[in-house]
Amino acid sequence: MSNKIRWGVLGGGDDSLIGVLHRVAASMFDAYQLVGGAFNVEKDKSIAFAKAIGIPTHRVYADIEDLIAHETAMDPEERMQVVSVLTPNFLHFSMAKKLMMAGLHVICEKPMTMTLEEALELQQIQKEKGVIFGLTHTYTGYPMVRQMREMIAGGTVGKIQKVDAQYYQGWINQLIHDKTQRNTTWRLDPEKSGISCCLGDIGVHAYQMIEFVTGLEVQKVLADLNHLYPDNAMDIDATVLLRLDDYCKGVLRSSQIATGEENNLSIAVYGDKASLKWEQENPNYLYLLEEGSPMRVLKPGHAYNSAVSLDGTKLPPGHPEGIFDAMGNIYKGVAKAIRGQDYHKAEFPGMTDGVRGMNFIEKAVHSHDQGNIWIALNAPN
Amino acid sequence: MSNKIRWGVLGGGDDSLIGVLHRVAASMFDAYQLVGGAFNVEKDKSIAFAKAIGIPTHRVYADIEDLIAHETAMDPEERMQVVSVLTPNFLHFSMAKKLMMAGLHVICEKPMTMTLEEALELQQIQKEKGVIFGLTHTYTGYPMVRQMREMIAGGTVGKIQKVDAQYYQGWINQLIHDKTQRNTTWRLDPEKSGISCCLGDIGVHAYQMIEFVTGLEVQKVLADLNHLYPDNAMDIDATVLLRLDDYCKGVLRSSQIATGEENNLSIAVYGDKASLKWEQENPNYLYLLEEGSPMRVLKPGHAYNSAVSLDGTKLPPGHPEGIFDAMGNIYKGVAKAIRGQDYHKAEFPGMTDGVRGMNFIEKAVHSHDQGNIWIALNAPN
Amino acid sequence: MSNKIRWGVLGGGDDSLIGVLHRVAASMFDAYQLVGGAFNVEKDKSIAFAKAIGIPTHRVYADIEDLIAHETAMDPEERMQVVSVLTPNFLHFSMAKKLMMAGLHVICEKPMTMTLEEALELQQIQKEKGVIFGLTHTYTGYPMVRQMREMIAGGTVGKIQKVDAQYYQGWINQLIHDKTQRNTTWRLDPEKSGISCCLGDIGVHAYQMIEFVTGLEVQKVLADLNHLYPDNAMDIDATVLLRLDDYCKGVLRSSQIATGEENNLSIAVYGDKASLKWEQENPNYLYLLEEGSPMRVLKPGHAYNSAVSLDGTKLPPGHPEGIFDAMGNIYKGVAKAIRGQDYHKAEFPGMTDGVRGMNFIEKAVHSHDQGNIWIALNAPN
Amino acid sequence: MSNKIRWGVLGGGDDSLIGVLHRVAASMFDAYQLVGGAFNVEKDKSIAFAKAIGIPTHRVYADIEDLIAHETAMDPEERMQVVSVLTPNFLHFSMAKKLMMAGLHVICEKPMTMTLEEALELQQIQKEKGVIFGLTHTYTGYPMVRQMREMIAGGTVGKIQKVDAQYYQGWINQLIHDKTQRNTTWRLDPEKSGISCCLGDIGVHAYQMIEFVTGLEVQKVLADLNHLYPDNAMDIDATVLLRLDDYCKGVLRSSQIATGEENNLSIAVYGDKASLKWEQENPNYLYLLEEGSPMRVLKPGHAYNSAVSLDGTKLPPGHPEGIFDAMGNIYKGVAKAIRGQDYHKAEFPGMTDGVRGMNFIEKAVHSHDQGNIWIALNAPN
Repeated sequence: MSNKIRWGVLGGGDDSLIGVLHRVAASMFDAYQLVGGAFNVEKDKSIAFAKAIGIPTHRVYADIEDLIAHETAMDPEERMQVVSVLTPNFLHFSMAKKLMMAGLHVICEKPMTMTLEEALELQQIQKEKGVIFGLTHTYTGYPMVRQMREMIAGGTVGKIQKVDAQYYQGWINQLIHDKTQRNTTWRLDPEKSGISCCLGDIGVHAYQMIEFVTGLEVQKVLADLNHLYPDNAMDIDATVLLRLDDYCKGVLRSSQIATGEENNLSIAVYGDKASLKWEQENPNYLYLLEEGSPMRVLKPGHAYNSAVSLDGTKLPPGHPEGIFDAMGNIYKGVAKAIRGQDYHKAEFPGMTDGVRGMNFIEKAVHSHDQGNIWIALNAPN
Repeated sequence: MSNKIRWGVLGGGDDSLIGVLHRVAASMFDAYQLVGGAFNVEKDKSIAFAKAIGIPTHRVYADIEDLIAHETAMDPEERMQVVSVLTPNFLHFSMAKKLMMAGLHVICEKPMTMTLEEALELQQIQKEKGVIFGLTHTYTGYPMVRQMREMIAGGTVGKIQKVDAQYYQGWINQLIHDKTQRNTTWRLDPEKSGISCCLGDIGVHAYQMIEFVTGLEVQKVLADLNHLYPDNAMDIDATVLLRLDDYCKGVLRSSQIATGEENNLSIAVYGDKASLKWEQENPNYLYLLEEGSPMRVLKPGHAYNSAVSLDGTKLPPGHPEGIFDAMGNIYKGVAKAIRGQDYHKAEFPGMTDGVRGMNFIEKAVHSHDQGNIWIALNAPN
Repeated sequence: MSNKIRWGVLGGGDDSLIGVLHRVAASMFDAYQLVGGAFNVEKDKSIAFAKAIGIPTHRVYADIEDLIAHETAMDPEERMQVVSVLTPNFLHFSMAKKLMMAGLHVICEKPMTMTLEEALELQQIQKEKGVIFGLTHTYTGYPMVRQMREMIAGGTVGKIQKVDAQYYQGWINQLIHDKTQRNTTWRLDPEKSGISCCLGDIGVHAYQMIEFVTGLEVQKVLADLNHLYPDNAMDIDATVLLRLDDYCKGVLRSSQIATGEENNLSIAVYGDKASLKWEQENPNYLYLLEEGSPMRVLKPGHAYNSAVSLDGTKLPPGHPEGIFDAMGNIYKGVAKAIRGQDYHKAEFPGMTDGVRGMNFIEKAVHSHDQGNIWIALNAPN
Repeated sequence: MSNKIRWGVLGGGDDSLIGVLHRVAASMFDAYQLVGGAFNVEKDKSIAFAKAIGIPTHRVYADIEDLIAHETAMDPEERMQVVSVLTPNFLHFSMAKKLMMAGLHVICEKPMTMTLEEALELQQIQKEKGVIFGLTHTYTGYPMVRQMREMIAGGTVGKIQKVDAQYYQGWINQLIHDKTQRNTTWRLDPEKSGISCCLGDIGVHAYQMIEFVTGLEVQKVLADLNHLYPDNAMDIDATVLLRLDDYCKGVLRSSQIATGEENNLSIAVYGDKASLKWEQENPNYLYLLEEGSPMRVLKPGHAYNSAVSLDGTKLPPGHPEGIFDAMGNIYKGVAKAIRGQDYHKAEFPGMTDGVRGMNFIEKAVHSHDQGNIWIALNAPN
């Protein structure tokens, strides 16, 4: 009998890109075995998919209720330990809730929920059930992001005095400029996508990244959103002023109309001693700046990196790893948690990130709607 | 008798870096001859300086009054045509005023004045006197900035929907963290530096660059400034939300506490068809982004560039030109204006840029002081 | 019963980096199932390893003979279809030979053999047995390398007139400057490493890359090797002049004493119409240069890429994939071949690459030893 | 009377790019005054040019003989001190010879002569006359090239074990592929261009750069040239194997058919302790690599640079200077020499560089013509 973690998946079938990403990530450190799931709303498609990816079909289920019913009835040594929720956004909350209620560990795609209220409810459930909950803010799995976090925590940049994060994409141009498309796509429909498009989809990654690498908490926000067209119900561009503490200010820039940008997430943290900069599209480079010294370029796999960074690098320097590897590192961290092993807090984002993220989105939209005023986050932990 | 433009300089003596920059720039196209000036507050030092740089000393003057008195008394074919004002900031206004009143053309270092009121007064004088006034927003002299402006004007990016400009430096770290230094340096003394340090010194460059390349005018601003220490009277970091028109929003980020940044001015203009990005520290690269097409990297001197860009490049592609060349291009443009030749509006910034810049600074500081509210620029032209 | 390809591995146990690389790659497209192997020279360690990575232990074997004996005795529907050879270099030949003789498909790490003679023998066996043979010149699995190949084949660069490939590393500095170390490390012992260190280990990658992307065959070589120390038996630095056809010359530069270089493989192909450049450490960028046009930067996943490039990209543009993904693409190609599906010749390197590579190494060393003279490759296909 | 150096120019009239480059460079530090010359073969055009650039016309001469006759007859306090030779290549030798014979200092464009024999003759004359001779290998004037030289001299990289220099351009594609053009352009006519096109025009820059930054002398060469077409008399592409000492090998790659490359001169010097890399098209970045440490990026103007590097930077860090500034630094060095001031050997290239360069070109062509054999440089100093 394999000692791999018994892993199930909800969604992610057919040509789902997110499905591929999670399966590769889960396989990366030989820690997970995909034992079943409900990959599609139609069970026979789920079964066909299971066959296509070469896993047994007897634990392919019609839906989450079916999955929970059968799996919880199985011998504890056989039943699924953790389930990844890769379904459309509006299902994340209910599925995560049901899984945790049933005592299963959960790995959940972002956004965790549609509202802060839901997020707080999940948080409460997790506390009560004591299960592991991983939220796939994938970018924190990059070795150089982890290294950035560790260096800041270790005092390399000194006291942080300015933070600037960006997440720019251009793909929504294809939809936004056509009246019919922008009024019919689910992405711009608040019923299906929640209260924010740009902040909800990508801005929240930048927000989470800021708190992840700095260890600071954003205290209040002032957001300026752009809908571009009056008949567009949702933000597709957002700039958010941030107050991190009395001393440190910041800015978060997020856009889906930054034409030609692919997936340009970047972050710069300026301290009174030094600064660190990182860009997602070239994730293996971390830039360390000091006044009057040559800039230094750190790369993964070198002994000068911290343990938690090195833990996320599989090959020697010069062998570029990418987004699949970042997600693999998050799965690796969740595996350690499930197995009760020691792990570093930076190894995977979780419930707190999810709650804080939903809070950020709601407060930022509120700030904008109130006329671009400061709103305290009063951020729950 | 040379047909060069007879040029005088106020300030810029001794080891003045700005003096070197202007002299090299003026010499670049064989258009100017330095005939005299007042390089120092002490006349004998001015004379020594004239000797050191190898120019005749008989038109070295004790001060601006002395200069104006003697030069205006000279034969029109002999007297100075244009004077560059390179003195400390607080003198720019009075000197430019006196020179224009005396009918002399002026090239003025930035900031043009200490207040908007002064700027408007200069503007009125220029109108009455009909003299040429060049303001050295040097960065607009780069060939690829000119090219960016021309491409946007020509429709390359389509309708502009987002603008993001940055000007980050880190040098003030050396002063700001020491209580004595921050309370004694002239740069942080409003009496000597005006109402803004960061916006006044560098943010205004980013503002001018935005209006220069887009052809749009900023309608209103919401600024968040950072003084870092309560006993520091001036902003050393600023983020400004911008409204360019009903459709287009923007953000301007400016900092002197971005530790390790040297002179990192950059601008990105996103349109509905394409985007253009440029960075001052690598000024010979202009990036053109379109959804679904490979990014294109334009460089100076190629035939695909516009006439006004090519006019600013002296050597074939691959021979990098820099900041001296950018300033040289501005001097070249002013020379054309003085000589009554045709020139392109983009060849040199002038009075309007100065007035709009001072207006921007005042309104942005006002926005911050009022609690980060939107302030209309009602920008004078 | 899974329809995955039944896959075995020789070597790659314990902390083997190459083992991780192959396992992740094999899992990437759900095409392979690891059913057994001999991961270690000690069978109990192999079994422990199998448990650690969560696979059944009943098909863990003592050695290759044991593996072949048992697997070939199994039902054709159950037995291993393909075996990856990840053992030390000197074992590649004998293992690949035995596997192919037994009718098993093979995926072999580089170098394929220790001598050209062995390579030719393997080639003969493969022909006779009709098995699939994949050689992991991993770098050809990158989407932009495939794209480069397709663009050249399609005429984008026109007639090729110059080729320049580089493979620079610096790691051998740690060994080479210490007399004891350089005389005792297996890497510099011809008995264990073959006739060449630098060309054999990395130069041959550059050679294979040249022929892969250009579609040309190198006709003759003139090599200048550097041993650095008289008591060092092997080359650790090599520059090789290349003649590709009557028209086109090239140069291959390879070094293990390029201090501070990590894994800097790059290639530039200059044609009479355009040029293409690529670098392994930033593998998601392909540079297209034409005289008088802006340089274009191609990236993976865009529709402008060729089918075989797109087949190797799993996520949308802006989500960087890396070396594991490149290897995954090669495994994907081999899987297609094993399953009898259509596949593109560029999807995986094979026996011809191995034979030509060994031929190149031998001829280049011969050229150097004869006093840096031209040696025809008479390259076998 | 100005204390500027009285400077004359031969050639460089009309739209000459090289003329602009030298005039701007000479003006940069206020050290030179252009007093006359012969800018054009037709004297009236020379006079018109003098007027156009605003200098007096009474010292505009019909030709070099005229210039020498008149200038040497003038009062020593009035006559030209130094003359820049900017005429077509085939005139450099005779003009430099006449000027030095007349006791004038010379700044000469590259190539210094058409043959080594001529170069040696010039060297002899210079020794006899004791005049200053500057050769404009402009790229050595960049601050970061000077810094590279100083760091290597100071032991930063340790013992040099590999050198790799490249000079790639693509412009000759416009001529080379058309039979008529390649058979009629002066650049490919040995009568007008000497024995080498590619090595003579650009390869020699790379050679000089190698010796400049390393302080080593190339001992022997093995060159492989490419004419591309049998009816093309001259090399347009060249790879040269280099032996610097018993220990250190190198390679010099030079091409005019590297399609799309603009002016891509670069150099990498690998030592046993560290390495340094520099690229002409981004001249303000110097890369320092060490095994196991983050790469460091040095930039001009910082206090960590050497005195001779800082002497070549006029503005604070982040204000990019370019090729005009590099040439300006060379003129500054020559001015110090003329004035009898102390100067650093690295401030300007001179006669030795010219002689060694011509020697290199001849020996490299000889190596190729003899069948790509090693030729000792027996390099004269």
